Amino acid sequence: MTGPIYVLNGPNLNLLGLREPEIYGSATLDDVVELCRRTAAEAGREIEARQSNHEGELIDWVQQARGHASGLVINPAGFTHTSVALRDALATLEVPVVEVHISNVHRREEFRRHSYVSGVATGVIAGLGIDGYRAAVQFLCSRG
Amino acid sequence: MTGPIYVLNGPNLNLLGLREPEIYGSATLDDVVELCRRTAAEAGREIEARQSNHEGELIDWVQQARGHASGLVINPAGFTHTSVALRDALATLEVPVVEVHISNVHRREEFRRHSYVSGVATGVIAGLGIDGYRAAVQFLCSRG
Amino acid sequence: MTGPIYVLNGPNLNLLGLREPEIYGSATLDDVVELCRRTAAEAGREIEARQSNHEGELIDWVQQARGHASGLVINPAGFTHTSVALRDALATLEVPVVEVHISNVHRREEFRRHSYVSGVATGVIAGLGIDGYRAAVQFLCSRG
Amino acid sequence: MTGPIYVLNGPNLNLLGLREPEIYGSATLDDVVELCRRTAAEAGREIEARQSNHEGELIDWVQQARGHASGLVINPAGFTHTSVALRDALATLEVPVVEVHISNVHRREEFRRHSYVSGVATGVIAGLGIDGYRAAVQFLCSRG
Amino acid sequence: MTGPIYVLNGPNLNLLGLREPEIYGSATLDDVVELCRRTAAEAGREIEARQSNHEGELIDWVQQARGHASGLVINPAGFTHTSVALRDALATLEVPVVEVHISNVHRREEFRRHSYVSGVATGVIAGLGIDGYRAAVQFLCSRG
Amino acid sequence: MTGPIYVLNGPNLNLLGLREPEIYGSATLDDVVELCRRTAAEAGREIEARQSNHEGELIDWVQQARGHASGLVINPAGFTHTSVALRDALATLEVPVVEVHISNVHRREEFRRHSYVSGVATGVIAGLGIDGYRAAVQFLCSRG
Amino acid sequence: MTGPIYVLNGPNLNLLGLREPEIYGSATLDDVVELCRRTAAEAGREIEARQSNHEGELIDWVQQARGHASGLVINPAGFTHTSVALRDALATLEVPVVEVHISNVHRREEFRRHSYVSGVATGVIAGLGIDGYRAAVQFLCSRG
Amino acid sequence: MTGPIYVLNGPNLNLLGLREPEIYGSATLDDVVELCRRTAAEAGREIEARQSNHEGELIDWVQQARGHASGLVINPAGFTHTSVALRDALATLEVPVVEVHISNVHRREEFRRHSYVSGVATGVIAGLGIDGYRAAVQFLCSRG
Amino acid sequence: MTGPIYVLNGPNLNLLGLREPEIYGSATLDDVVELCRRTAAEAGREIEARQSNHEGELIDWVQQARGHASGLVINPAGFTHTSVALRDALATLEVPVVEVHISNVHRREEFRRHSYVSGVATGVIAGLGIDGYRAAVQFLCSRG
Amino acid sequence: MTGPIYVLNGPNLNLLGLREPEIYGSATLDDVVELCRRTAAEAGREIEARQSNHEGELIDWVQQARGHASGLVINPAGFTHTSVALRDALATLEVPVVEVHISNVHRREEFRRHSYVSGVATGVIAGLGIDGYRAAVQFLCSRG
Amino acid sequence: MTGPIYVLNGPNLNLLGLREPEIYGSATLDDVVELCRRTAAEAGREIEARQSNHEGELIDWVQQARGHASGLVINPAGFTHTSVALRDALATLEVPVVEVHISNVHRREEFRRHSYVSGVATGVIAGLGIDGYRAAVQFLCSRG
Amino acid sequence: MTGPIYVLNGPNLNLLGLREPEIYGSATLDDVVELCRRTAAEAGREIEARQSNHEGELIDWVQQARGHASGLVINPAGFTHTSVALRDALATLEVPVVEVHISNVHRREEFRRHSYVSGVATGVIAGLGIDGYRAAVQFLCSRG
Repeated sequence: MTGPIYVLNGPNLNLLGLREPEIYGSATLDDVVELCRRTAAEAGREIEARQSNHEGELIDWVQQARGHASGLVINPAGFTHTSVALRDALATLEVPVVEVHISNVHRREEFRRHSYVSGVATGVIAGLGIDGYRAAVQFLCSRG
Repeated sequence: MTGPIYVLNGPNLNLLGLREPEIYGSATLDDVVELCRRTAAEAGREIEARQSNHEGELIDWVQQARGHASGLVINPAGFTHTSVALRDALATLEVPVVEVHISNVHRREEFRRHSYVSGVATGVIAGLGIDGYRAAVQFLCSRG
Repeated sequence: MTGPIYVLNGPNLNLLGLREPEIYGSATLDDVVELCRRTAAEAGREIEARQSNHEGELIDWVQQARGHASGLVINPAGFTHTSVALRDALATLEVPVVEVHISNVHRREEFRRHSYVSGVATGVIAGLGIDGYRAAVQFLCSRG
Repeated sequence: MTGPIYVLNGPNLNLLGLREPEIYGSATLDDVVELCRRTAAEAGREIEARQSNHEGELIDWVQQARGHASGLVINPAGFTHTSVALRDALATLEVPVVEVHISNVHRREEFRRHSYVSGVATGVIAGLGIDGYRAAVQFLCSRG
Repeated sequence: MTGPIYVLNGPNLNLLGLREPEIYGSATLDDVVELCRRTAAEAGREIEARQSNHEGELIDWVQQARGHASGLVINPAGFTHTSVALRDALATLEVPVVEVHISNVHRREEFRRHSYVSGVATGVIAGLGIDGYRAAVQFLCSRG
Repeated sequence: MTGPIYVLNGPNLNLLGLREPEIYGSATLDDVVELCRRTAAEAGREIEARQSNHEGELIDWVQQARGHASGLVINPAGFTHTSVALRDALATLEVPVVEVHISNVHRREEFRRHSYVSGVATGVIAGLGIDGYRAAVQFLCSRG
Repeated sequence: MTGPIYVLNGPNLNLLGLREPEIYGSATLDDVVELCRRTAAEAGREIEARQSNHEGELIDWVQQARGHASGLVINPAGFTHTSVALRDALATLEVPVVEVHISNVHRREEFRRHSYVSGVATGVIAGLGIDGYRAAVQFLCSRG
Repeated sequence: MTGPIYVLNGPNLNLLGLREPEIYGSATLDDVVELCRRTAAEAGREIEARQSNHEGELIDWVQQARGHASGLVINPAGFTHTSVALRDALATLEVPVVEVHISNVHRREEFRRHSYVSGVATGVIAGLGIDGYRAAVQFLCSRG
Repeated sequence: MTGPIYVLNGPNLNLLGLREPEIYGSATLDDVVELCRRTAAEAGREIEARQSNHEGELIDWVQQARGHASGLVINPAGFTHTSVALRDALATLEVPVVEVHISNVHRREEFRRHSYVSGVATGVIAGLGIDGYRAAVQFLCSRG
Repeated sequence: MTGPIYVLNGPNLNLLGLREPEIYGSATLDDVVELCRRTAAEAGREIEARQSNHEGELIDWVQQARGHASGLVINPAGFTHTSVALRDALATLEVPVVEVHISNVHRREEFRRHSYVSGVATGVIAGLGIDGYRAAVQFLCSRG
Repeated sequence: MTGPIYVLNGPNLNLLGLREPEIYGSATLDDVVELCRRTAAEAGREIEARQSNHEGELIDWVQQARGHASGLVINPAGFTHTSVALRDALATLEVPVVEVHISNVHRREEFRRHSYVSGVATGVIAGLGIDGYRAAVQFLCSRG
Repeated sequence: MTGPIYVLNGPNLNLLGLREPEIYGSATLDDVVELCRRTAAEAGREIEARQSNHEGELIDWVQQARGHASGLVINPAGFTHTSVALRDALATLEVPVVEVHISNVHRREEFRRHSYVSGVATGVIAGLGIDGYRAAVQFLCSRG
């Protein structure tokens, strides 16, 4: 399939680079999107990048990806640990999905260790900073 | 009371019949709504049917049902297991509420066995496919 | 298959209508059986109804249903939460099984939330009072 | 800082005074807002009060408070127990945050005892009825 | 009420005095029954004593006690920890129920610490040897 | 041994009959002591009765019972569930110990179901009201 | 001792070979009994084989084995995981007891991993199909 | 009622201002008492303030408050998490009780998250520093 | 397949007969190997027997069994409860595997009840002493 | 600092040598104190030794050690597992603290494995009998 | 630092491509090593690749990496979930560590969800097949 | 017995003094061995000191200590929490065993609080730095 690669970012990621830089680094969401776009372009591919603080909006976008996207990168942020609905939406996709976390969630609060998303994702990347997005996009480009 | 019966469907149920038919069958959400409407009509009643992927929107609709609806059928889908807010909204209703699940949630992942909604519902129906909606509407017609 | 629909009731349900009416209502077990019979008759079907306080007897009856019944309704009452043996017997059936509870077990003690039976049933109905039996019989009639 | 004090109320609090008065009392949300405004005025301060049933909307408002508000009062209602995303948003604030619950959540269902918000709040007040809001606003006025 | 006091003994208590005397002592079930009879006689009362290894039979007897017995002593033995059905039967009684254990169950295996019966009994006596039956009968005589 | 039977009562039992009579009845601590004295006297025995709200004082008294008392009745009240030190003191006794609870702790809060004392007591009586003390004293008289 | 070896089979094992052959194989209960008889005969011994769906009946038979049997093979089937009463009966035996499961219970549902019987059995065999019975009988012949 | 407001402080609070100032601030216990007195005086009320490291002494004082105090503020400190006896004493009061913690216990060790006191308190305040006492006294003045 | 049957023994089994004979009996590891050899020989088969205290060595040997052995008996001893790596190695085999324990692990410490190996073994034998090895070898001979 | 080394012993340790010698040995508390004194003297130091069955008294003494003692040895006995208040008192010390247990608590009841004190102690010694005190005093002498 | 990148593979990975290809794919360990080498070479870097089934050997190699390697990729395989010793070794490194899993461990057995290694790794990659190694090496090249 | 005292050190302790000095101090393993040797020499005894990162090697050495050593000091490091096999080896010894940890494991990660070794050790010392080894050797010298 040659559709775009969706890059979805969940709640508070619009503040990337502005909040808690000791955890998340200084790159902004725009930097992330630009990095993904450039990585995809190297493989002759396009991306479709969006961010929302609204669970329902993310679910809507995952549904739009059905039959359109050739792969999906998602950083579900706080919804990682709480949203069965987002999990259910992702489970309806037939293209590969990569879950990305900027920080190493395993080194943080206990409740961040469980992800509803991982069980329906193809793969998971955590702790590589924004390089995790690049690795995810590269992986999807090589698949689709 | 002779108000309409509300039929609320939660996240991803707009994809009914399109995703994972081995679990959910081939009927679409339109089929469900039509089935509910026909069942209510047989008892001389009307329904008000809505679907949303947004938790807040479902809460808004439950609040609208207060003093208006004569009963409420809800398939909270993924919110079943995670939404205390939806539970709290349903707890404010004085008309009977029936929670419906198309598949038998007890045969699926462990986390699907706990429902925040059941504790404030009048009754719960799971695993009867879309016939569960019919049974729920019939029950509510016989009550109100 | 055109065999009868089995309607099995577990321990203490012979006291229905006599004990704790604020939980179980005032209908008696005879009322339940009559309701099931009438509902089945409307679909041109018959039922075979039995009650026992003995786990072994219920298992014997489930085994008799093999190759004979076209569907089975069971209210396992107290055995719901404790009987793996009953679960194993039900698992040998090839016809649909509906588990019925008169009260909404999710609003009662914590230990009533786990059912060994649900994992092998086709569907589960709880909290609709004795209307739950009618819905179960209707469902089975429409299947078989 | 001399910005306004944000007073955010979560899901179903628009029904305050209308539902379950034996738990929540008879004061309405307007009464709460008026009480906060008056309390702040005594200290020569202003408030910015909002309510939503939508998790994402609350997160948006918390983000708007960054660099604008001098303190924040939040009654997260049902989201208290389920929203990591709301917690993450609050964690980005540098002004003090007070979590308020009208009823004593420790006397209610078990699941109401865990709060994702408390871990990032400055303080927590529960069970003082709407007086809890007053105490929260007073505290924030004395800080900022 | 002046009906007899039921004294029900559960599984394996027919072996009392024959098995594991270091735990259960050397008195036999006949000794227990005689002790109860004599204790009741001192208060001008009668007992009705039965033992069974069958859960269903015990439930049948509890049901027979309804409207007939003036009190009930039960040593549920192994069913203590596993029988919700027996609990449900006891819950239908309106006369006081005393649960008796010959040994101190709190000093034995972990699983013997939970009793389904205690939650619906009036009182519980454990570890007094067969004197526990006497105390139970005395208590019931003083009530009824 | 022919020493007195110790009757120790833990925290708040000095309020017996004054607080929560629907749980604890209307008898006072004096009534309890008098009942124990009378019961012991019938067997030609004496009691030594004390009450304290102080854990350390109860431990001191248990230690005094060593080599002096012929048996010990203890209602540890709130210390039942929290005091390993009291348990350790009781474990040093060589005479029989009976733990008494006026109410049926198994019908109350979950945390009241675990007792540190039961594991070192000879027997346990709960829910018989103040008759539990009589049964305990009788048992000890018959032993020593 | 030269008494017979008891071979007891629990609930639903009368259906062996008829139900779920992918789990239990195609041999019937008669085949199992014949295999045990032949194995015992090779060692000049006899067996006493019985099956029941009734917990109480199995307990009765275990009690009959006291002082009569020289060893006991039991496949408690569904009662394995739920019957303390059966465990207590087996604990009264002084001859060796071997618990047999046809399938490897460790590869099935989580709840099948706990056995009340193993704690009082001499040995446990699982997953060897009906050969497990042969191994059990051989072991008991070599002991008694 | 017009009795004084009791202000009870538990173990180690006599060291307030001297130990771990990064958690508890630099105000001393005398400052707290003075703050409470002044706050009460503004409403024409008096306080009765005491501190103890002894659980039993605190229980004695709570009992003295019965029929005397018009409200009670308690910072149970380390006893918060371990004293059922203190909880039981507080449960006998008929005047409102406010539990105060200087630091936000939810941000500290896991074991500090459970309070035996909260379940019987009217309200709970944590993390507001010594202002929490003021808010508590104000609340009680407005009630009584 | 006609390759040898591997008989692998884990850590400390080289001390068999020397340590804790009340648990493990007096037979030595040489006796076990000889018993296995003789049992296999009766079926015209050979064994390959090894013991190691090194997890890695056992894994190496399991890998060597691939494509060479016709069956494998393993007593993983202490590694039973802790080695996922050994489990993973066994999972790569296509021949039947029998896990043997000399003592009945279910009667010992809690942590001995969980086996990582059982989930990938064909069958499990525990508590039959060294006869368990014979039964395991016989079973494998009859299969291969 | 050159202040004395505090040696505090908790509940029931006044009975040392008198109770359960198979666990605690035959040395008395006086022997322990003498041993500590002698050990300290070898390093030219003094001790201050006390014992109490009262939690509050121990807390008082720990507070007295502030700014006075150069180190503290504590055997909290039964309070080890239950006293957050004692832990909080110890946490205020700035000199090293060694927790000593005469027996190896890890070989006893499950509840003895958790210590509230260990988390704030410098070191922990268990199972060395009264030699543990000597090692603790030696360690503190070498530090201070 | 310009030392080589260590690529360590744990138990059973020498069988890569040979076992369970539906989980692990068909690439062999040689393919993985070659892929890593080529990826590193593109950045002008070298790798040092090793595999072992022995936990101790892996620990030895991690220690050798200290002061020599400029980064480390590790697929701990079965040791992921069980080796604190390996975790401790990795914790001594000052260069970044990436943990790689070929399959998505979150979709497999429950026990595979916990990793002792993740807590000391810089980042974690799972489910990308052998591409995970490439992403890990790229990340390390970009860092060092 | 007059054999040497074994001093075994587990994984990563060869790096002592080199890694994480804020936790483990600056002394090296050679310093520890020298300290033990000197301490033993003072009592006219010898030591046999070894270190390994290999669990199997440590088990081999423990086995060699049987009948040879007069006591054993072991710092199992990471194997403390994971090795049942090491525990089983230690359990075969008849001489006293002291488990030593340099840091106070109770102040570190949760998983470091459980030790498989403590249950079979004579005593446990933690948090005294390398002085813990001296105390252990002194204790063993005084015993043997």
